This record gives sequence, C-alpha cells and structure tokens, in this order.
Amino acid sequence: MKIINLDHISSKPLLSEAKKAMIAAIEKDYHNPSSQHKSGEEAAEVLDNARESVAQLINCATPKEIVFTSGGTESVNHAIKGVAMANAEKGKHIVTSNIEHNAVIRSLRRLKTAGFKVTSLSVDAGGRVNPQEVADAITDETVLVSIMHSNNETGTIQPIEDIAKIAREKKVIFHTDAVDSVGVVPIDVQALGVDLLSFASNTFYGPTGVGGLYIRRGTRVFPLLDGGIQENNKRAGTENLIGIIGMGKAAELAERDLKPRLNHLKNLKSKLLAELPNYIDEYILNTHPEFSLPNLVSLSIKYIEGESVMLMLDDDDIAVSTRSACATGSLRASHVLLSLGLSHADAQGTLVISFGIDTTEEDILAFLSSLKSVVTTLRDISPLYSKARLT
Amino acid sequence: MKIINLDHISSKPLLSEAKKAMIAAIEKDYHNPSSQHKSGEEAAEVLDNARESVAQLINCATPKEIVFTSGGTESVNHAIKGVAMANAEKGKHIVTSNIEHNAVIRSLRRLKTAGFKVTSLSVDAGGRVNPQEVADAITDETVLVSIMHSNNETGTIQPIEDIAKIAREKKVIFHTDAVDSVGVVPIDVQALGVDLLSFASNTFYGPTGVGGLYIRRGTRVFPLLDGGIQENNKRAGTENLIGIIGMGKAAELAERDLKPRLNHLKNLKSKLLAELPNYIDEYILNTHPEFSLPNLVSLSIKYIEGESVMLMLDDDDIAVSTRSACATGSLRASHVLLSLGLSHADAQGTLVISFGIDTTEEDILAFLSSLKSVVTTLRDISPLYSKARLT
Repeated sequence: MKIINLDHISSKPLLSEAKKAMIAAIEKDYHNPSSQHKSGEEAAEVLDNARESVAQLINCATPKEIVFTSGGTESVNHAIKGVAMANAEKGKHIVTSNIEHNAVIRSLRRLKTAGFKVTSLSVDAGGRVNPQEVADAITDETVLVSIMHSNNETGTIQPIEDIAKIAREKKVIFHTDAVDSVGVVPIDVQALGVDLLSFASNTFYGPTGVGGLYIRRGTRVFPLLDGGIQENNKRAGTENLIGIIGMGKAAELAERDLKPRLNHLKNLKSKLLAELPNYIDEYILNTHPEFSLPNLVSLSIKYIEGESVMLMLDDDDIAVSTRSACATGSLRASHVLLSLGLSHADAQGTLVISFGIDTTEEDILAFLSSLKSVVTTLRDISPLYSKARLT
Repeated sequence: MKIINLDHISSKPLLSEAKKAMIAAIEKDYHNPSSQHKSGEEAAEVLDNARESVAQLINCATPKEIVFTSGGTESVNHAIKGVAMANAEKGKHIVTSNIEHNAVIRSLRRLKTAGFKVTSLSVDAGGRVNPQEVADAITDETVLVSIMHSNNETGTIQPIEDIAKIAREKKVIFHTDAVDSVGVVPIDVQALGVDLLSFASNTFYGPTGVGGLYIRRGTRVFPLLDGGIQENNKRAGTENLIGIIGMGKAAELAERDLKPRLNHLKNLKSKLLAELPNYIDEYILNTHPEFSLPNLVSLSIKYIEGESVMLMLDDDDIAVSTRSACATGSLRASHVLLSLGLSHADAQGTLVISFGIDTTEEDILAFLSSLKSVVTTLRDISPLYSKARLT
C-alpha cells in the first residue's frame, strides 16, 4: 500500500544514505565514546565527525557549540530552562510569542511555577512578530527572548535577525526554535546572531529522537541533564551514537543538496497554490505569501471540519494533518490559528499540507483531486454550508 | 583486532536479535506514532509492544508505568528533579547516599541552587547503606529518598526493599537508580516497593542512548521534558523509535534468558575471584562478598596506579576501566571508593573488571595472565612498592 505522505511536518522518510550509515553503525557496534581505552577512541572520532557535519550545516564558529540531544523538544527545554535557571539572579522575566510550539509554551509554563514572569507577544495577521514589540517588552529583569524561526502549523518565518539584533543590544540572551527550519531553508547561526538555536534531525531526513542545540560560546546556560562529563560537560548521558551517526550523515547531505531541494520544494508549493483554486473554493491561506517555509501550506476550508477532511483523505491513502503531531489528542482549536485572528469555525477547517524531497507533482495533483471530492461530499452534508448558500 | 572487553559496565555489545530488530525498523522506516492518520498506527503499535516487553522485565502493574527516555541519565534527572519540583510545597529535603552515580549527585546539586537541602548518608565498610539511617534522616520536610540499587564501580547491591518499606511508612517518595541492575539481576518493582526506578537499555545489551523510568501509578512527578503529549503526557518529544525497538527486543530476551545468563556470570566471577590470588598479591576487593552484581569485580592493587594498569592492558587488547565512563577526564579519586574507607593511594590503584554474556573463561584467564605481568612490571618501578618491601 503506497501512501502519499503530505504530512512531512510530522514525519519525514529517512534518507537512504542515513539508513546505510546507521545500519553500518549497528553492525559495527561501537564502544562507549567516553570509555578510557582504545575501543572508545574510534567511537569518539565518529561522534566528532557527526558534530562537524551538523556544525557546518548551520555555520557554527566551532563544532563545540553543538550539543547533541534526544530531539527538538529536549533542545528547547534545555535552552529555555537552562538559560532561565542560570541567569535567575539577574531577573525572572522572559519574552516570547503567542504562536510557539508546545515545547516552548509548556517549558515557560513550568518556569512560571518557579516565579518567572512571561510576556507573550501577539502576531500580525500574517503571523509575524513585530521586532519593535520585542524591544518594548524587554525590561531590566529580562533574561531570555525565545521566538521560533518558523511555525510548524503555518510555515511562517519570523524576522529572527532583527529580533536577535535587539536582544544583543539589550544584552538579553536570545533562543530560537528552528526545529522546522534547519535543513529546509539556509540557516547561519552567525548571520542570524542568535545565542541558542534548537533543531531536530528528522527535519532533514535523519532519524527521529535525535536533535541538537546550538549554544554560542560564552552563553550562560545550565544543563538540563546533569551527570557525566559528556558533550563538553553540557549534556550528561551516554550518547545515542546510532542516531547521531544518522543525523550527521543527513546533515552532510542537507548542506550539499540544500539548493536543489529548495528549488524542488518551491516548485511543488507554487504548483499547489496555483492549482488549488481550480479544485476548491472558499478557503483561507494561513501561509505568509513572502516569509514562509517552502515545504508547507496551511489552508482553512470554510464550512467543514479539517479532521473529517483528514480522515477521508486517509481513506484515499493520502496523509495530511490538521495540526502539530505533538498536539494530537487535543480537541481544542490551534492556538496558532486563533492568534492569526481566525474564527474557531475556520480554525477547525484547517489542513496542513507538508511535503518533501520525495514528493512529486503527481502526488500534489492526486491530493487535489481527492480533496475536491472530499470537500464536495462534506459540504453537501454541512449545515453551515447550506446556511451560507441561503444568505 | 579482537579486543577482550572486560569493561562491560561502560559498554556492552548489542545483542544480534536487537541488531536485527533495529535494522528492520530502519528499513521499514515507521511514521510518527503520534500522527493522526493510519500511517502512524503501526508505529504506535510497535511502541506499545516495546513498552510491554520492558514492563514485563521489571514486573510493572501496567505498561503505562514505563516512560521511555534517552537513557539512564535522563531517567535519573527526571525522577529526582521531577519529584522535587512537584512536591516542593510539602518540603525541600532529600535523602541520598554518598556513593551515588554522578547523575544523582549532580541532579541534587542542581536542586540545592533551588533551595533544597540534601542529607547524604555514608555507607559501611562493605559499601552498604543502613536502612535505619534512612529512617532517622527523614524529616517532615523530606519529599524524596534516592538510593541506588547497585553501584557502578563496586557492584554492591543495596537493601532496597527495606529502604522502600521505610519510605512508604513515612509517606516519602522513593527512587532507585537501577541502571546497572535491570536486566542483570532479577528486578521486580512491585516486590521492591519502589515508586520510581531508572534503567538503561545497554545494560541488557540493547542500544545506548535509550532507557526508561518506572513511575508507579499515582506518583506525583513533573516531566523533565515539557511539550507534546507523548508518553502519556509524561515525557514530550517524538520518540527514538529505532532505539526503543532495540530496547524492547533486548528486554524480551533479558527476561527469557535471565537465569542462564546469571549462572554464566556467577561462574565467571567465581573463577576470577578464585584464580586472582594465583596471579597477583596484595590487593583489596571492593566488591561485597554477598550483596553484589554477578558481572563486576572491583579490586585495588597496592603500590601501583590503576590508570597505568588499564593502559598497559589496553596495549594487550584487554579493555578494563578504573572508574565510571561518565567520570572519564576527571583526575580525582573515586568518591565511591573513598566512601568505603580506602586511602587515596589504594583508590588510585583500582581496576573495575566487568563482563557479560559474551565473555568466556579464556577471556578471564587471558586477563589474569596479562595482569600478572603488568603488575610485576609496574611494581618493579614503583617507589611505594620498594619502600613497602624495605619495612
């Protein structure tokens, strides 16, 4: 059964080169990189190589600025809680936005129980934070600004460089959650001017459950995992070497192939947006026309439920999503879409279509054709739609 | 180059069945278990199966009591910080022992910066905590007792059942770091009566960078990783499915083969201890004669440095260690050995020999023969040894 995966944001296929590297690592069965004798040296070297590939992908000043983690969520928790706790003597105020991922929102909520105050900025109708509002929100007590690079539900990209500049001028540490950006769009931590940046391996077709945190040299941050001296004393625990090897290989190829991949994704997105009006009507595009990821389109289809569309497409072997996979099980409308000013009804009609290097134009056309028939069927039984027709 | 691995405590080989399961998982390339459509269902099922195998290995009341983590260190950090922060309103006092792993020690040190007080109990000459001292140390402010199940440097096993009984009577949450025990000796969380128990996959020949935390139903503990709703809302982040599959398979075999493995290890240990006096003299055994792991022997060889012995054995392609791999890079004498009452000089002469299901009697004999010549060489140039001969 071939499934058309248009839910890349929840999971991307493993690159065949990453698969090969991981299988070779399993067969090789490395020793612990921290062990004292020569069996560990080879493992330590492999770990260094992966760190270098990842550091190059985001242009670190040195590979030592990379800490390997168990994924984007750990990176975000490490950055936010680690900076907050390490700098609490200076103050207990944090600035963020209303459209962050749950990893950010809930890390901040946890800090509130430890006495931290959080200013959460609203976004404009396009889903973007106004850098001036960040500047205005910073006080003498502010120890951290955390604004995501791109949004996982709408694909909208934030003015990170401008915000980083403001944070730097005001001597406040700046973290960006770039989990959906690294390996998809060019990311240069030095050009962006951020202090911390979270990313995940699966975004660039590496394995799940592995990620990293960029920590600019000299940034004051506590470890989230205390214990051994691994990761230059920044993250304790014996490494997931097999996963890290897969991520290293995926990072190497993401850097090498960034341009052709970008072109491919941009073409698919243009095709989808151009063809959409030929298949359905009365929908809202939640994706910023200029500042957005090339691999994601969010649309709210009026008068029907996204959940029903998703399930009917699933019957046609087409996978899309209605929200972040991390929020599955929650019945509430997405906080991201409500922040854009969407009504509850329109937010409930939302579909997120995300694609990747393995997606073809035929996949997009097959989706559109299924979508047309699903929307027609659902609107035929929609009281909202009948009502709208009568007025 | 065949290396005789007598440093199983720092890394064990992957079981061939675990390798096969992981390679199959890589080739299969599962979708995200949390995704909304049917692609995710198969992955969710595989995740459930692994959870069941692990739950059975330690006899949980329900598989939901298992939280998958990125390894023993994360489990320990989650347990200690999570219980402390979730129960801080009751009090800010924690009881532990002097011989815990760095993951415990440093998690507690981190909590001290948040106002927690820690009572750290000494051990007797055999390396064991006296349960009565735990009872005496508990106050109205105590929210957590954390005592390890077995020590990673000496192999000594603590009276966990007795301590758990005391904690339960005094209504204090009890965590045990069983990272070096689960899958090696029988562990039954219900019989032990613990509230939380940390373990790691590699201890039972699964992959590194994966582990778990047993949380008894109803135990009040905050997540360490906040974000999505994975792991029954107890640990956010997309799962390391490949690693978890490897751990699940390894757990299944650890349960099936526990007895024959135990017999094999006990035989090796008896052989080593019986033969040792035929090869070297003047050493101290740091391993408890009755309560200790079957796969580890710690000995302090007088007048010489363990570090030098380890390096010379490494030249003979025999891997042993002088301390926890997590403490490599530290030059200080082991806090565990000093707690047993060893002098600094004797502590520096310590070797940890740890073996596993792949170790043979020939390996043990090859080690002993190399050890004899290394010890002779080193003592010939040891001023301490010459001095001791003269007196």
